[in-house]
Amino acid sequence: MKQLRGFASDNNASVHPEIMNAISNANVGHAIGYGGDVITEQAQSVFKNHFGKETETFFVYNGTGANVIAIQALAQSYNAVVCANTAHINVDECGAPEKLSGCKLLPIDTNNGKITVEQIKKYMHGFGFEHHAQPKVISITQASELGTIYSIDEIKIIADYVHSIGLYLHMDGARIANAAAALGCTLADTSIKAGVDVLSFGGTKNGLMFGEAIVFANAKLAENVKYIRKQSTQLHSKMRYISAQFMALLEGELWLQNAMHANKMAKLLGSEVSKIKNVQLTQEVESNGVFAIIPKDVIEPLQNEFFFYVWDEHRCEVRWMTSFDTTEADIAQFTSILKDLIQ
Amino acid sequence: MKQLRGFASDNNASVHPEIMNAISNANVGHAIGYGGDVITEQAQSVFKNHFGKETETFFVYNGTGANVIAIQALAQSYNAVVCANTAHINVDECGAPEKLSGCKLLPIDTNNGKITVEQIKKYMHGFGFEHHAQPKVISITQASELGTIYSIDEIKIIADYVHSIGLYLHMDGARIANAAAALGCTLADTSIKAGVDVLSFGGTKNGLMFGEAIVFANAKLAENVKYIRKQSTQLHSKMRYISAQFMALLEGELWLQNAMHANKMAKLLGSEVSKIKNVQLTQEVESNGVFAIIPKDVIEPLQNEFFFYVWDEHRCEVRWMTSFDTTEADIAQFTSILKDLIQ
Amino acid sequence: MKQLRGFASDNNASVHPEIMNAISNANVGHAIGYGGDVITEQAQSVFKNHFGKETETFFVYNGTGANVIAIQALAQSYNAVVCANTAHINVDECGAPEKLSGCKLLPIDTNNGKITVEQIKKYMHGFGFEHHAQPKVISITQASELGTIYSIDEIKIIADYVHSIGLYLHMDGARIANAAAALGCTLADTSIKAGVDVLSFGGTKNGLMFGEAIVFANAKLAENVKYIRKQSTQLHSKMRYISAQFMALLEGELWLQNAMHANKMAKLLGSEVSKIKNVQLTQEVESNGVFAIIPKDVIEPLQNEFFFYVWDEHRCEVRWMTSFDTTEADIAQFTSILKDLIQ
Amino acid sequence: MKQLRGFASDNNASVHPEIMNAISNANVGHAIGYGGDVITEQAQSVFKNHFGKETETFFVYNGTGANVIAIQALAQSYNAVVCANTAHINVDECGAPEKLSGCKLLPIDTNNGKITVEQIKKYMHGFGFEHHAQPKVISITQASELGTIYSIDEIKIIADYVHSIGLYLHMDGARIANAAAALGCTLADTSIKAGVDVLSFGGTKNGLMFGEAIVFANAKLAENVKYIRKQSTQLHSKMRYISAQFMALLEGELWLQNAMHANKMAKLLGSEVSKIKNVQLTQEVESNGVFAIIPKDVIEPLQNEFFFYVWDEHRCEVRWMTSFDTTEADIAQFTSILKDLIQ
Repeated sequence: MKQLRGFASDNNASVHPEIMNAISNANVGHAIGYGGDVITEQAQSVFKNHFGKETETFFVYNGTGANVIAIQALAQSYNAVVCANTAHINVDECGAPEKLSGCKLLPIDTNNGKITVEQIKKYMHGFGFEHHAQPKVISITQASELGTIYSIDEIKIIADYVHSIGLYLHMDGARIANAAAALGCTLADTSIKAGVDVLSFGGTKNGLMFGEAIVFANAKLAENVKYIRKQSTQLHSKMRYISAQFMALLEGELWLQNAMHANKMAKLLGSEVSKIKNVQLTQEVESNGVFAIIPKDVIEPLQNEFFFYVWDEHRCEVRWMTSFDTTEADIAQFTSILKDLIQ
Repeated sequence: MKQLRGFASDNNASVHPEIMNAISNANVGHAIGYGGDVITEQAQSVFKNHFGKETETFFVYNGTGANVIAIQALAQSYNAVVCANTAHINVDECGAPEKLSGCKLLPIDTNNGKITVEQIKKYMHGFGFEHHAQPKVISITQASELGTIYSIDEIKIIADYVHSIGLYLHMDGARIANAAAALGCTLADTSIKAGVDVLSFGGTKNGLMFGEAIVFANAKLAENVKYIRKQSTQLHSKMRYISAQFMALLEGELWLQNAMHANKMAKLLGSEVSKIKNVQLTQEVESNGVFAIIPKDVIEPLQNEFFFYVWDEHRCEVRWMTSFDTTEADIAQFTSILKDLIQ
Repeated sequence: MKQLRGFASDNNASVHPEIMNAISNANVGHAIGYGGDVITEQAQSVFKNHFGKETETFFVYNGTGANVIAIQALAQSYNAVVCANTAHINVDECGAPEKLSGCKLLPIDTNNGKITVEQIKKYMHGFGFEHHAQPKVISITQASELGTIYSIDEIKIIADYVHSIGLYLHMDGARIANAAAALGCTLADTSIKAGVDVLSFGGTKNGLMFGEAIVFANAKLAENVKYIRKQSTQLHSKMRYISAQFMALLEGELWLQNAMHANKMAKLLGSEVSKIKNVQLTQEVESNGVFAIIPKDVIEPLQNEFFFYVWDEHRCEVRWMTSFDTTEADIAQFTSILKDLIQ
Repeated sequence: MKQLRGFASDNNASVHPEIMNAISNANVGHAIGYGGDVITEQAQSVFKNHFGKETETFFVYNGTGANVIAIQALAQSYNAVVCANTAHINVDECGAPEKLSGCKLLPIDTNNGKITVEQIKKYMHGFGFEHHAQPKVISITQASELGTIYSIDEIKIIADYVHSIGLYLHMDGARIANAAAALGCTLADTSIKAGVDVLSFGGTKNGLMFGEAIVFANAKLAENVKYIRKQSTQLHSKMRYISAQFMALLEGELWLQNAMHANKMAKLLGSEVSKIKNVQLTQEVESNGVFAIIPKDVIEPLQNEFFFYVWDEHRCEVRWMTSFDTTEADIAQFTSILKDLIQ
């Protein structure tokens, strides 16, 4: 594969240089393992600055780990988790949520990756009926797997409803930075402050090497998480190297710069490809993903130049993700090749 | 905590500079995620060089992940896993093996961290009896959690027995490099070539930032491991950063240098502290760990200077681990403080 | 609750007198536990007479137990099970399949409780893609939860497709007797002989006190089932009392008489209620269930006379099940009350 | 196998005639399923009479089911359960506790099936240490698997200790009736009143056809049990047939008569066989089990006459269980054959 940059996924990108520097700087001497080090303490403090003093944050390896720990913290095995049918927990984790939590997933059909209270309500029955997996967690993804974004009000409406019936709201925020950047709000505004109980906070897709965080709205929710994290194989020994990355990402505005850039590149890409005939965008470009239907015979030759994933084979729908390091030149080159292939 | 180096654990050490360089060098452009990149291909090839062409290697985040994936690959939930009572899978993984595999663990009491065929045989009954969790995997640790080492012959004897009754041999090789260094043999000699079916190969304790490997003796055993790895939350997206580390560790002899140095430092530490009165070594110093009983009132003040773990509170037994970056000066300083505290 | 017979469920019925006799007759002296007794041997032989010499049958307590053991026998935790959204495994087992097997369930929207190859095909993708729970089992229900029945050809078409892509076909036959009775075929014709790999064979809903069976098409599929059954808490000690019931049910034609009668009563009930204005049948009456939409304000007063379940609150759809002991008088009385309530 | 009565297990016995009558009497008309019937209400009330108004009782199929539900009600998957190495949950349930609860079992070596606070204390460490499965439940068996019995004071001492450190006490009471009969106390005296939090109450081994109960000391502990029971495949639909059995067993003194008789027969058997040379009792005969070492060559011929289990092959130790229907003639005949075989 000759190209250096593609549009396959934001996790195909490299590690941001400032993150890499932070890792190097952390590489001095010994440090107590498993999070007992100074950098981890600092990083947890930075999370409190972002999300509020009453929040508690745990670092893990990856998004699947963050999600399954969040579910285990909120639910028992006889509970059910309601989510969009497109949710990462539903289609991209090889059944990890079911296996580790024992819970049933109840997927809602959605066209844009977002779910509404009306849709959730259809699953809110059978409470107290022992034959029925008891709904306990609603999980939304911000930005969604289709690149769309919940407004803060949309989240608040879901959160209010979910709490009014005694359930919890989980947010898969693998791309929460992109969402906050697009909304022009803080990370907390679009998650904890909007009523999210537990947030899977994404790092890897925004320039980290490895590491995600789980932010709990309060200490009570996080009570047993350290055991759940360890038993779920998600506790890193040399924790400082995750923590240092989050320090670099969140102490200043690197998280925002990276996300804004990726979003901007997606807008540009969406705008450019939509000028090409027979390319039809299928979703609003609200964060860093572009979804489009393109001619079938173009897909493979295009992939040979720039790798990307087919989203829906039947519809010839493809997904192009931008990242912090996407350049206007990448887009120009990509668009040009696509144009040539189609003509 | 003022000190830069302690003896708490080999995972309190930093990342070896050559490993760090390899990570930096890998940080160029885009790469396909989840192991589809060129560096991962190279690293898997390097593992084949070490362990044999017919082996298959998978990279994961940590040792607990490696162990629970290994068990799932070898056993069904109605099976039992026999191991030393000191085994990491038995006492240091918060029940991850039971939760993820469903298997029962059958711990053998041991004084030195090693188990024998005679001890294993006591658990080899109830085959075909449905009330009894069916033994399927024997798991040994090399070097053991008590720093002791199985000779190649000892492993072969266990492997032969285990295979003769249709079971599998798993090796937790979190410190296999230290064992091979001590034995003066190859990594394969003390594992796959001696009859081990699946090896959890440790990287983090030998100078890596994160990442362990699971080596399967043949492709058949590894058939479904990619799904197990994903469902067990152990699949990294930016895989090249794990693979690059293993390349640096294993392409040349860095693995050996690091391990030899750590072992040498442990020998020195053991030798020095044993000269101090009221310090009594409890295990042979065969790899990079020193176990000793010291006066109770000395423990806390010593920990204030150099952090380490108490192994057995009742016996006042402590554990001191050395690593690739332990220096003779560290040992001299540590020994001197210990001597002062005792007198 | 004053009434003796209702239409809530076929498991609200009592135990058929011949079954009760068989139990009494088995109550002599001692018998080896866990299935080592003579009656169990006989009952297994009777199952071979029905389903073929190469089949293997295991007795369990209930349908949920039968289903989760079947799934565990056919699939690993990283697999997925495709079924109708109305399937018992999907909506009536409180997540037992997910918890015990670890598998993901993929529910197909259906209007009549039956699924087709076309619908199944939509889920047949992502094979070899490790992020995707790998489809391995298709589960159909005969008769379906909506009282509809697959023709033998419909099953064969599904079985052929399922096998052609290397998957297994499971049948939840909680009411297989009703299906066979309706189809006028043998129990095997509509299950094992039509290509079903594993059948959950229902007893309780056809006049037993307790006990279901799991029929495996061949011994290979059943290889580890005795361990799975025990570990899934479904092994009964005094097995002869389950076996004796199955002998009574299946040695002669009691299974058929019971099922035919229940079916006939359902036809009668359906025919009678459909004459009442504002009562609208929602499903063909093919076995022993009648589904109908009735006026909302009638539901509760009717339930006070004859207990039954509301199937879909939103639509005011109710379910009336008949059983071996339903009488024409029951139906006349029920119909008469319903008529009065509506007018 | 020609004999009608053996000493293999109390669950090889038939169903007591009064229990059978109760089942027959319950076999009238329809009844709401899953425990919504009148007889179940009555049976639960009878349990409150025995164990106290604040207790809550759930009926299940078997002892393994009762035990794994009890553990799930008391513990999370990162917890550990301490029990005797001889405990049914440890050696006779094919790993069901590990699979369904995810918990680690910590077995205590014991010679007589009973454990003490001193032994328990050795496992009471690592609290708050996330690498360590957190002890949460102590499980004792009354009468023990070796036929021995905890005195009420012994239980109280364990309960007080267990509660003082915030843990729970579970009792596997598969043979609690035998224990209470031997102690001359009520069922509650030797369980709930002595501090047991959750009791697996055995029915099958004391004359029932099927059915066990789980008694929770208070409603809080039982809060989610109905979901756990269903998800663990242990909810019976035609519940009245279990409930009717418990009514017959517990409304009067049938439970006591059966247990006293079985105990008396065991005493007699123990006394008679101990007169035979080369027969050596290995446990006190305190309930309804007799454990003895007998000459190796006698075992098989004796089993051909009266079936029983070998307890420990290495020691030639066998187990003989008596039941409510054991007669003095059985014992005389058995003893006579044993004597002949030895001479």
